[in-house]
Amino acid sequence: MTKEFRTLADPETVRETIADLDLGGGTEQVALREARGRVLAERVDAAIDVPGFDRAAMDGYAVHASDTVGAGEVDPAVLDRAGTVHAGETPDVTVDPGTCVEISTGAVMPPGADAVVVVERTNEINGDGDADNDDTAIEIRTAVAPSENVMLAGADIAAGARALGSGTRLTPREIGLLSALGVDEVPVRARPRVGIISTGDELVPPGEPLDSERGEIYDVNTTTIAAGVEAAGGEPVVYPHAGDDFEAMENLLRQAADECDLVLSSGSTSASAVDVIYRVIEERGELLLHGVAVKPGKPMLVGRIDQHNDATEPSATGETAQSAYIGLPGYPVSALTIFRIFVAPAIRAAAGQPEPTTATVDGELIAQQRHDEGRLRLTSVALIEDADGEPLVYPVDKGSGATTSLVDADGVVAIDPDTDYLAAGESVTVQLFDPDVRPPSLLAVGEADPALTELLDQLDRPRFLPVGSREGLRRLRDGIPDLAVVAGPTDREVDAVDVGEWSREWGLLVPEGNPDGIDGLADLIDDDIDFVNRNRDSGLRASFDAELDALAASRGVDRHDLTAAINGYEATVSGVESPARRVADDRAAVGLGLRATADRHDLGFVSIGTQSVRLLGNPDRDEKPAVDAVGDALETLPAACSSLAGYHFE
Amino acid sequence: MTKEFRTLADPETVRETIADLDLGGGTEQVALREARGRVLAERVDAAIDVPGFDRAAMDGYAVHASDTVGAGEVDPAVLDRAGTVHAGETPDVTVDPGTCVEISTGAVMPPGADAVVVVERTNEINGDGDADNDDTAIEIRTAVAPSENVMLAGADIAAGARALGSGTRLTPREIGLLSALGVDEVPVRARPRVGIISTGDELVPPGEPLDSERGEIYDVNTTTIAAGVEAAGGEPVVYPHAGDDFEAMENLLRQAADECDLVLSSGSTSASAVDVIYRVIEERGELLLHGVAVKPGKPMLVGRIDQHNDATEPSATGETAQSAYIGLPGYPVSALTIFRIFVAPAIRAAAGQPEPTTATVDGELIAQQRHDEGRLRLTSVALIEDADGEPLVYPVDKGSGATTSLVDADGVVAIDPDTDYLAAGESVTVQLFDPDVRPPSLLAVGEADPALTELLDQLDRPRFLPVGSREGLRRLRDGIPDLAVVAGPTDREVDAVDVGEWSREWGLLVPEGNPDGIDGLADLIDDDIDFVNRNRDSGLRASFDAELDALAASRGVDRHDLTAAINGYEATVSGVESPARRVADDRAAVGLGLRATADRHDLGFVSIGTQSVRLLGNPDRDEKPAVDAVGDALETLPAACSSLAGYHFE
Repeated sequence: MTKEFRTLADPETVRETIADLDLGGGTEQVALREARGRVLAERVDAAIDVPGFDRAAMDGYAVHASDTVGAGEVDPAVLDRAGTVHAGETPDVTVDPGTCVEISTGAVMPPGADAVVVVERTNEINGDGDADNDDTAIEIRTAVAPSENVMLAGADIAAGARALGSGTRLTPREIGLLSALGVDEVPVRARPRVGIISTGDELVPPGEPLDSERGEIYDVNTTTIAAGVEAAGGEPVVYPHAGDDFEAMENLLRQAADECDLVLSSGSTSASAVDVIYRVIEERGELLLHGVAVKPGKPMLVGRIDQHNDATEPSATGETAQSAYIGLPGYPVSALTIFRIFVAPAIRAAAGQPEPTTATVDGELIAQQRHDEGRLRLTSVALIEDADGEPLVYPVDKGSGATTSLVDADGVVAIDPDTDYLAAGESVTVQLFDPDVRPPSLLAVGEADPALTELLDQLDRPRFLPVGSREGLRRLRDGIPDLAVVAGPTDREVDAVDVGEWSREWGLLVPEGNPDGIDGLADLIDDDIDFVNRNRDSGLRASFDAELDALAASRGVDRHDLTAAINGYEATVSGVESPARRVADDRAAVGLGLRATADRHDLGFVSIGTQSVRLLGNPDRDEKPAVDAVGDALETLPAACSSLAGYHFE
Repeated sequence: MTKEFRTLADPETVRETIADLDLGGGTEQVALREARGRVLAERVDAAIDVPGFDRAAMDGYAVHASDTVGAGEVDPAVLDRAGTVHAGETPDVTVDPGTCVEISTGAVMPPGADAVVVVERTNEINGDGDADNDDTAIEIRTAVAPSENVMLAGADIAAGARALGSGTRLTPREIGLLSALGVDEVPVRARPRVGIISTGDELVPPGEPLDSERGEIYDVNTTTIAAGVEAAGGEPVVYPHAGDDFEAMENLLRQAADECDLVLSSGSTSASAVDVIYRVIEERGELLLHGVAVKPGKPMLVGRIDQHNDATEPSATGETAQSAYIGLPGYPVSALTIFRIFVAPAIRAAAGQPEPTTATVDGELIAQQRHDEGRLRLTSVALIEDADGEPLVYPVDKGSGATTSLVDADGVVAIDPDTDYLAAGESVTVQLFDPDVRPPSLLAVGEADPALTELLDQLDRPRFLPVGSREGLRRLRDGIPDLAVVAGPTDREVDAVDVGEWSREWGLLVPEGNPDGIDGLADLIDDDIDFVNRNRDSGLRASFDAELDALAASRGVDRHDLTAAINGYEATVSGVESPARRVADDRAAVGLGLRATADRHDLGFVSIGTQSVRLLGNPDRDEKPAVDAVGDALETLPAACSSLAGYHFE
């Protein structure tokens, strides 16, 4: 059983404790071409004048400004052309009084000249069109002042001038200035090395096979936190999982401490792994904090780990070298939230990266939010726009174990420990997960359906939550989504706008060839058949139960008498495809599903009926452009769904 | 001479023409660990149920919910403990009615159990503390409903469900969901390959030696545009410069066309290089546009380049394969502006990257802005905050040839062709160069000074424009900076707050050992000495001219008589260090400068006097925190400047 957290640190203490850790952050030289996004570790002064010479700023003629005094359209000055200077050439001619030299933008001003007359204010006279003919005279139709149309040496930036301060983040613009100074390598803040250790025997790296029988799940935190470390300016170092016993864990943590500035452990929800880490930190390091008064995220460790000290001599200070250690909670949403709030700022500070400009959105809470714990709550929320494009906010609470809340939410609302209730309609401030987060164009909730998937693919940035028909209707009643997707019979009516509708054929999925000779519902009741049902929120389940009611009425019995006779009536699964997969895998003999799903999995199908799939629009938002886009997509939907068996569009 | 642009395309036409170019954008598979920031090329559906099994959501006891009906603190249910299941284990026990099984968070629910009672609501009774003693009974002090504290298989996401839509940008959160689904490789939009060709014989890659005599300058655009391509989601491919003649340019452009989706040329301001490219595109491709009605940025080419076609067979369509081509203006600020406005959006579109959320700031224009051309003007502007933190906006116009405007500006204000005047005090909308741009904490302008550089290093994000004392005072009078830095005598007084002051010793810089035996100013006039002066805006120059006035008065002559006798009185340079460098390089015998600069360059020094360096604060902004920070930094400045010779702090 998990250790009880004796005292929970307040968030400010956690922040300060982490800020006091040493996360490295030295200096390294990188090539300018690799420097984008890095942060200067030292001030850069100009080592050269830019430009390095007096430079013509326009195409025209280099002149003595004094030769043009009084010149104009009416009374032009006439100067002998003494030669030509192009960009990239050393001038081989001097501009004596009374002469001029043709010059290109960017070329070196020839000796003697102190200004340029732009070509548009000149004429060639008595020339033969040959640019090399130096007998040509030039009419100058304007007067110029000394330095006019000339960029003097060092005028852009002078040698010795402060060019960029330490701490400057290098974007293409700073890279441009450094290029102009001839710099091809820059001193930047080193990326702190962050070791990531995955714990928990039940975790399997993505891409490898999974044994669900023994409760294996894919390791989410390693990849997620590694991506977060990288985004914060750190260099993630991923360590393979080495077992949850003390010795293996100690070796792994100390190896990571040797090689990294900060060690993050994360991954397991299993109490034993957490306890082992706790012991390792206590015995082979220093535990600074244990538990933080934030929800989600309570279980969090902060401390230091001793590095291996193979040398027989102690270090100069006589102290054991240590690396920083932070233990994140096991659930992905908690782990990423704690990482984002407490760890990422410390990594950015060590890397010299600026805090991203606070991306917050103020919006109106659509659904009330209760809260009754004495700690800061970071409530995950999502955004949707009303018909006027104003942001609305609703809480996303699928439990910290759900990985889908990672993408179903857009940010968090911080609710302080003293607030126990937020009413619908209150204005709240959402801290976006990322400054680039934008609300989805459309929020649809309800019944999952293969034709709906096609429809969503035709929209720009839709969000769909497959919560089932019943829950979809409930949320539409609460005013949350733009659209509810409802299949089959419903037991409540909700004020809504009809946006579209189609029908789909449903029935029983059986193995190819129907080996048990299933004819219909009655076989499930009367024979000993393993069945796999859909969950109560599903519209398929609603149609299935309605058929059972009809059968019970015709037999003159209570529906419960029938359902009790079905092996697996309570064995419900959530996905449209889940029953089909169980039948295909021989884990059930019959499943509830669609003809289209049977087709897709090469299963047999026993038809029972058709049911409607209705798109019900939120009456407050039927002016939204995305709802119109749904109407447009419905036009082409029949063609897009031509391969879906059992579908009928109006 | 440059070709005249016959008709300038309006910006909308340019945008559409570029949008019609084919910039590639296929699909590639990348490892999930490399996928951060990439964009999904296809929809990803869940291939598995998550979780893959009914999973305990809390530590506690797995029970039959029906065994807990009516249980409570007063009247607990008592169940026999039949065993234990940890996370990562296959349950080896079945929960029969009347029994329970100890279970850890994340473990597989054992057969028979349908709910979990959290450990906090249970007691072990008649146990001996041995977890393996299966004779222990457990008091259950609460009733639970079926599925309570259990996450059912597929409840997070069900197999077959739409997980992420095509076009989704992968942040750590999406990477988390993909990990949960076991995905370790994802189909993402390919990065368009963008070839970057630098033209112009005068350009030298940063890091290589520069020959200023022949007008060489460092190539700014290649590195800058490459960084911009990368930031937009493209893959930059840099081609070495191969000469500006037709054949070399043709080969280079067609090689790049073979290897890239888009070819950008950029770099030269030289007319001949532009003309050669123009001819290559016309003869070996297709010119779609020539010139755009935007300032800066008029010279811009859009077209296509034929790829080499070595095969004897024509392609299936009989058409020559082509790559897109865009020619950017030569000046860095123009090139980056045109890239940012027209090219980056097309690269993002091809890479599937979303447009960054529009980062704009509305602010009050501090200085009037005139504009008299019939084309869209993208005026570079910078931001500074007033005492209340409200943004103020001022134009940055150093001419398109200046690379320092890259970093002295924060964004652009688009001024339409019909507007010829914006008054100070008008509100304007600034499109920031980057959503992360923040105004500097402090804007100082005026005299460059080594002690000032130390002071700036102690501030967070200051901006200093070394425009000289005279121009600094002028800008302070116009209300632009927070602080003007003014050295030496001034010919105007401006209403200002005294923020700080120090003094510095100035005089003549001479080679080590003073080989010409210079004693003072008179030697410059009376002997044939090559002198290098500072520019008129400099405070050093003001002190120098004041000394000349005094000398002229004592000799009873006009100052002009003296200055005319100084070789190089008009040969001014802009930087504090520039005269010292010329003396050190033997390009001049005497330079105007500071004792501290002479020290730094191991030069001899002939003292003439000391001058004050005054920090004059903008009276409207003396409440700004950054101005206080200057006060704090002044406290420690004497220590930081202890090695600067000739400095005296109050």
